[in-house]
Formats: sequence, C-alpha cells, structure tokens
Amino acid sequence: MSTTVSPALEELANAVGPDALLTSDEDLREFRDPFAFAGWDDYTASAVVMPESVEQVQEIVRIANRHKVPLWAHSTGRNNGYGGPAPRVKGSVIVSLRRMNRVLEINEECGYAVVEPGVRWFDLYEAIQAGGHKLMLSIADLGWGSVVGNTLDHGITYLPQAMDMAAQCGMEVVLPNGEVMRTGMGAMPNNKSWHVYKRGLGPTPDQLFMQSNFGIVTKMGVWLMPYPECYMPLWLRVWNEDDLPRVMDVMRRLMLDGTIRMVPQVMNAMLLGAVFSTRDQWWQEETPIPDEVIGKMARELEVGRWLTRFALYEDEPVADYKFQKIKEAFETIPGAEVWGEKHAPEDAAKLEHPAERIQAGVPNLEWNQMTAWYGGDEGGHIGFSPVAPLTGPDAGALRDLLRGLVEKEAGLDYIAALIPTNARSFVHITLVIFDTKDEAQARRAYDTSKLLVREAAKAGYGEYRAHLDFMDLAAEQYSWGNHAHMRFNETIKDALDPNGILAPGKSGIWPKAMREARAREANGR
Amino acid sequence: MSTTVSPALEELANAVGPDALLTSDEDLREFRDPFAFAGWDDYTASAVVMPESVEQVQEIVRIANRHKVPLWAHSTGRNNGYGGPAPRVKGSVIVSLRRMNRVLEINEECGYAVVEPGVRWFDLYEAIQAGGHKLMLSIADLGWGSVVGNTLDHGITYLPQAMDMAAQCGMEVVLPNGEVMRTGMGAMPNNKSWHVYKRGLGPTPDQLFMQSNFGIVTKMGVWLMPYPECYMPLWLRVWNEDDLPRVMDVMRRLMLDGTIRMVPQVMNAMLLGAVFSTRDQWWQEETPIPDEVIGKMARELEVGRWLTRFALYEDEPVADYKFQKIKEAFETIPGAEVWGEKHAPEDAAKLEHPAERIQAGVPNLEWNQMTAWYGGDEGGHIGFSPVAPLTGPDAGALRDLLRGLVEKEAGLDYIAALIPTNARSFVHITLVIFDTKDEAQARRAYDTSKLLVREAAKAGYGEYRAHLDFMDLAAEQYSWGNHAHMRFNETIKDALDPNGILAPGKSGIWPKAMREARAREANGR
Repeated sequence: MSTTVSPALEELANAVGPDALLTSDEDLREFRDPFAFAGWDDYTASAVVMPESVEQVQEIVRIANRHKVPLWAHSTGRNNGYGGPAPRVKGSVIVSLRRMNRVLEINEECGYAVVEPGVRWFDLYEAIQAGGHKLMLSIADLGWGSVVGNTLDHGITYLPQAMDMAAQCGMEVVLPNGEVMRTGMGAMPNNKSWHVYKRGLGPTPDQLFMQSNFGIVTKMGVWLMPYPECYMPLWLRVWNEDDLPRVMDVMRRLMLDGTIRMVPQVMNAMLLGAVFSTRDQWWQEETPIPDEVIGKMARELEVGRWLTRFALYEDEPVADYKFQKIKEAFETIPGAEVWGEKHAPEDAAKLEHPAERIQAGVPNLEWNQMTAWYGGDEGGHIGFSPVAPLTGPDAGALRDLLRGLVEKEAGLDYIAALIPTNARSFVHITLVIFDTKDEAQARRAYDTSKLLVREAAKAGYGEYRAHLDFMDLAAEQYSWGNHAHMRFNETIKDALDPNGILAPGKSGIWPKAMREARAREANGR
Repeated sequence: MSTTVSPALEELANAVGPDALLTSDEDLREFRDPFAFAGWDDYTASAVVMPESVEQVQEIVRIANRHKVPLWAHSTGRNNGYGGPAPRVKGSVIVSLRRMNRVLEINEECGYAVVEPGVRWFDLYEAIQAGGHKLMLSIADLGWGSVVGNTLDHGITYLPQAMDMAAQCGMEVVLPNGEVMRTGMGAMPNNKSWHVYKRGLGPTPDQLFMQSNFGIVTKMGVWLMPYPECYMPLWLRVWNEDDLPRVMDVMRRLMLDGTIRMVPQVMNAMLLGAVFSTRDQWWQEETPIPDEVIGKMARELEVGRWLTRFALYEDEPVADYKFQKIKEAFETIPGAEVWGEKHAPEDAAKLEHPAERIQAGVPNLEWNQMTAWYGGDEGGHIGFSPVAPLTGPDAGALRDLLRGLVEKEAGLDYIAALIPTNARSFVHITLVIFDTKDEAQARRAYDTSKLLVREAAKAGYGEYRAHLDFMDLAAEQYSWGNHAHMRFNETIKDALDPNGILAPGKSGIWPKAMREARAREANGR
C-alpha cells in the first residue's frame, strides 16, 4: 500500500462532490495534530473527504478497497493530546464526518438521543435546550468534541449515566467491506429497544468498534439523565501533596456505596495553575517548578495541593444528607475542606466556574486554556493516561513514578488529573505540556511519554488510550500470552478488512500486508 | 462434520483422564435439556468431557480441531428454560466445566471476585461468607447456576452492580484454535487493573464471548458490593391486571432518577401462584385459568394481580426518604400498596421470603418450585423473553400480545415476570410452563413459543436470549440490512474457528461448512 492516492481522488470527488474533498496544503493543515512540532510531518494526510450520508461513507470505503488506499476516519477529530485528527499512516485519506452532524432523535421519556458522528457536545446540548427537554448530557471537558468520536476513543465524561463510559447504546456501523450493520436490538428491523437495551441476541460487538479500526460508526445512541431535583457541584481541597492516597481511599468507599455516583476529577495544583494562570507568574526558570513554589501556587490560587471536583444529582434531602456524609468522610484528612452549593439544574448554564458547568453537561472551552502554560498560543500537551485500582497505595505509587519521571527525565512540570471512571479504578491523566514551537522541548516531551509507557507497564499500569505517536509501543505492553490479544485483534482485522484500508495502525492493529512489510523492514534494519 | 466422534474419544480420555470422560447413556442423561419431552433426542450429546484446568481445555480444543468434532461448552449447564446443558448439534461432545470450580480471588477493598466457570452462586456466596467479607454478590433466582455461565448467557441478576448485566470485569478465554487470551487490562502481564477496569487498550471483546461460540471462558472477574448500612426489600402490590402500564411508568421514573438502583421484578399473580401453590388448587380444567379465578388467586395468596419485588441498599436516612418517595409515587395507582422493612445486611440469610434473600445475594432454590405447576415433578418451562422500552404503553402492548397468544394459541397459562434490567428497558420473561411427560402439551408449548418469536418481532420486540430449539428462528428476526449482523458474526466465526468446532449453531451462528450443508439441505427439500 502506498501513499499515492491520486487515482482514487477523482472517484472520491465524484462520490461526495468536489467541494467535499480537500487536498490543498492549507486545507490539510487543519487536520494535522495541533500539538505536533511544526516541522514534523510523520502523520500527514494526502486528502480529506467529507461525506454527508451513510451511503457516501459506504461509497468511500468501496473506492478505498478498489484502490487500496488507507482511510483514517474521525468524527470531529479533536482528540487533543492523543494526536488530534491526524492519521497513523502518512498519506492516508482522512474521512472527516464533521458534515454528518444531525441530531436524529431526542427521547425525553426514556432519556436518550441518537446522533451522527459530526454532532459536537455543543450541538447536542443546544438541541436538547431547543427542544425544551429537561435532560442532562454527560459531556467531556471541551465542548467542541464529538459525542460519537469521544465515545469511540473511550473518552471520559462525568455524569452518572456515563460512569464506566456506559452512556452509549446502539450503533450503526459501516464495515470495511462497505456493508452497513446495526448493533444490539437495531439488528432487528423496527425494533423499539435499539437505544434502551445495550445488547441484542448473540454476541454484542459495540465495544469492538471503539479504539479500533474495524468499522466507521455512522449513528449512535447516547443516554441522557432527567434533571435531578437539585444539582450540587462539590469541591474538596487538601493542602499536602501526600494527602492524595487518603483522598483516593475515601473516594473509593463513597463511590462503592453509591454516595457519589458520577465521575470525579482529582487535580493537582499545577493543573489548576495551568487552567487559571500562566507559568511565568510563578517560575521563570526552565527547570520544573519546585515543590515550594507549587505550595505557593496552591495557596495563592486557593486550590490546595489537590483539588477535587465532583457533584451530587439528587432530591434535596438526599443531597443534604450526602453532603454531610461526604464532608465528614473527607474532613478526617487534616486540613481538608469540602464545600458546594445546591442549584436548580435549569441554572447550571449560569454558573461561573467552567467545571461546575461541565459537570452539569453545559459545554464550554475554558479548560483548553491550560495548554498556554509555557506561554503564547502554541502550547500543546500529550496525554499519558494509565489506569490503576482506586486505592491509596496505587495512587501514591503511580504519582511517585510519573512525577519522578516527568520532572527528572523530561525536566517538565507534573500536571495531573486522576479520574475515577468507576468505583474501583481511576485513569491517571498526565498532561505532558510543552511549547510546540520549541522542537527540543517537544522532542523531550514525546521521548518522556514513551518512557512513561514502558515504566508504568513494568509497574503494572496500562494506558486507557494511547497517543498516535506511541500507539504501537503502548499496544506492545499488552503482551500476555505472547501477545495473544493482539493476534486476536489481527485475526478480526484481517477477516473484516482483508485489504487493510481502514485506519491501519490504530491502537497498534495493522492489517496483514502492513504487518508483513513492517516485519521485513524491522529485519532489514 | 459428523456425529461419529469415537476416534477422538481416546485422545480426550488421555487429555483429562478416563474418569472425566462420560459416554454411557445413563451419564449422558443428566446433560439433556431437563424440560424436553423424554422421547425427543434432537439435542443429545455423544460424550461429556470434564476438564479441570485451562491447559486441559486447550488440549480438548486442539483434539476437536484435529478430528473436526463439534464441542458444546457449558459452565454448570443449568440454563433452565433455554435448553439446559444440551448441545445444538446432536452428537456434540459437551465440555462441562463443572470441575473448574475454584474461587481464585476475593478482593474486599475494591469489591470483586475472580472465579472459574464451575463456581456456582452457592459456592461464591459461601466463599465470601467463609472469608468474613462484608460483600454482597448479585445472584440469579436459582442458586445452582454458574456465575460465569449465567453472565455469558446475558443472565439477569438483581443487585445495583449488576444493572445492565454490568457486573463482569475481565476474562480469560480459550479461543477455538487452542490459544489462551486475557481481555481488558489482563492482556498486560501483571497489570493491577484487570478486574477493576472493564477495557484495555484497543477494542474490548468481552461481550463478544457472550451468547456466542467464539471462545471458552475459563476465568472471569465479577463485581461485588460492600454491605450497605441497611438492606430494605420492598414489595408493591396492585389489584388490577391493567395497573401494569402505570406501574411500569412510575418504575421508569424512579429508576431514571436513581431512587431505585437495582433490578426489580414485576410478577403476575400466576407466577406467584406457580411458586407458592399448585394449579389444581385453583382450576381443574385443561383450559387456561380464567380471569376471575386469577383474581381469586391474587386475593387468596395476597399477591395482587401484579406483585413487584425490589429493594433499597442505602444508609438508613436515605432508605427512609426513598421508601416514602417510592410509596407515594406508586400509591397514586388506586389500591396500590408498598411495604417493606429495613434489615442489617448480616441478617439477610435469615429472611423468610426467598425473594428477599435473592435480592440480598443469598442463593436458594425455592423459586424452582414453579415448574411443578401442572402437577408432579415433571414440570418444565420454556423462557420466551423479549425486550421492550420501559414504558407503560410498551408493557401493555407486549402483555396483550403475549397473553393473547399463550392463552388462545397454546391453551396454556400466561405466567410473566417483567424485569427492568436498566432504567430504560425491561425483559418480559414469559414462562411457558408445561408437563414434560405430556408430549402433546410439550409440543404445543414449543410451537407456541416459536409463534411468539415471530409475532413479537413483527411488533418490534426481540428476544434477549433464545431457547436452543428456536435459536435459529430467533436469530433470523435480527435481519436488518439483509442479515448484516449475522454475516458479521459469521465472518468473525470463520476467522476464529475455521474448522467450526466450537458450539456450532449457538445463537444461530453456524460455521462455514455447516452453513453450506444447511443451505444444500434447504434447497434439496
């Protein structure tokens, strides 16, 4: 398979109309990893095709099969910190689904919506508001992302229905052979339960289309939550770096017993610093910000060393009871403070703090601010995101490991958000922030991230989601049984996509011909 | 593929030891569908092999590949109402995993256990008790079932962690080629999050091994719940057959807002009659029990026309608040009554009513009583179990359809349990109960069930789980896109199991050679 795709371009232009095929350098620039150093071009596409219907997606896939052209599909293509919209294989044709942006259904009675992949959090929120539906959407931190795209990358959102990434229900998928399939109850014509029951009869493939290259999802159901009687965003602040393990132990108990039934976020002072200030306010050296300066930042920004955002969605008496219980549980940690106020869900859009809006499903972009940490508008970050059991010892051990490596090996700041996506585990989002105009700093950030992948795996922690640049390395760590799981993935890949046209290399899964070429290349070296 | 398996038997005996290979008619009798009419032999095995290790399972699979012998695996093989342990293809070798019955881990801190497939609800409950763990297991109605087996068949259990069948986390699977794979974080050696985080990096295949014939699960994680401060089993009784839609509408609202966070069961009077009495106490004719007699039964058994069992697992003040809220919400239905008492979780085993024990994870067999409805010990049932949105109109429409067909077409009693497995949908378990010694009655029950499959599908309702005898018919209803989903399943099947040795026909999925043979046969007719 080569990067010479021109023979296919005419057919693609015919399939979608010439305006929906982008090939100029200027147009393509938008589809690069926004955080890659400008001089790098490992992950650049040769063209972008923008279908507006399922039939056009099918036709694109058929054309790619005829011409053996690699496709790389995205929904809106944000995926910040993990490679953005860029393809793994240079020269791929990006299938951007941004124009397929219809909200197909909002069902208030049963609490769900059905969306196309181009629908952003902003769009679905607006559609819910416009329809007057008293339903809350569980959104990601940045409102420009796609509901479908975020879900397919195992993206984290925060409301109760999205714990364990469980808000998805029912899909329509274009397979690599161009066929369309509906999952779950959608496999039965006119079935009424496609978006209310997550399985069908026989095996359930939905999660097979997440973080994979087995199909292009063209419709998806997403669960919404009816407005609670009261929405109560909460904050927990602790003042010592080493309070973290106790925070996580108390958190686990409160989540396991159902007191907290949403996805909290435990942020270090540096992360809040990066959202709400600039680095040079605190430290003018290139070296990592020293511990005592972090302490100063924690005090002056009034965020503490660890600030946890979370929320209650309850009837008022239950919210009052739970608030007291939560407060007492966390305030056993010396100096810890828990606070928050009750609001009518209707008032959530008026809340000042962006996190309090995010946890109520009101999209915004204010959290994006953090990438300007090293100055200017050219900040970027790499997300390094291993999973650990939600215990104090695991939180402490993982923090020690990652902080040590980020500060000592990369000479960068340790910026962390620990996110319990369920009551038993958390994802440790490590934001390796760097100035994308500084090639040496960018290089160091990438190298460090790869070191983190290896060292975390040695300690028993694997990534929940991998950056484009080290997907292979991250996938290699999942080597149990002499890489049995990857061989399984490859077997599925080869069966569904014998020409290997769909997203080769995604999550380390390569089609047969490319596996063989890569093996030859590796032997030749 | 033939049913002549004798050349393989010697190798199987060598693999597991001669005592672990059963071939006598007497031994095999236990592995038939317990509810099939005694004269039928469509689904009889030629042998049963009982491995005691993963390595033995691998060896069995390799032998089957060499000899092209069809295997049919079960955990403990209960599966009552859906065909029991019997194989779809006559002459298959049953792989019974009953001897792989170790509880490998109980983690109290994070709330999970790891079990082999032969572990029954009884066994895991006893292991939890023996370890002094204050953890509740979410169990099925009959305690003899396998934790793994029930999960793999999408079986329903009742505690909060098992809503949406979500209690499973992490698997080990022997694939049809004899390789062993671990899913999720288990794909990384020594990863700490295998049983606390449900995914890995890349696509998640766990649900691909449920209701399918793609692998034999040899280990599985299952989530447990810490003891709540108080356990409060609740009952709701309504007195009119047509109160059902209002019950379901109120139930949806109370589940969507998190007031009820477990899996309730809405049972008709006849189901309770079948558990707690015998049919001839009420009606001596062969015709379906008339409505006025059902009313009499409802009054005399004090169960009402619909009796709902459900429960709270909360701190005491929250339980008190929720109880009042639930009571007020349901008692808007004229004549409706809600009652229940708070208990310490430690006392659950002492509760008199078996359902109150089931909802606290204390296994028993008392619910099995119902199959004696038509007298004697030879009662059987077929489960016909379509899914519907959790709305009053859907509940009413499905009830009308199924009751009409069961009573008028089969001349049998309409015995129903409506089970909301999440806040948005319910499974309508229709128990077609018959006397297995009466061939005409058994035949009518099977024929009626097949009619139900077709008629429910026409109305937009598909089965969550299909009986062995009409798996093909049930699967055929999932025909969207000219059977695109089944072709997808077949593509996966052929890739993973080219010799078609594992559970051919399960959920209507046939391997290539058998598909071709069946097509020839169909054309020849």
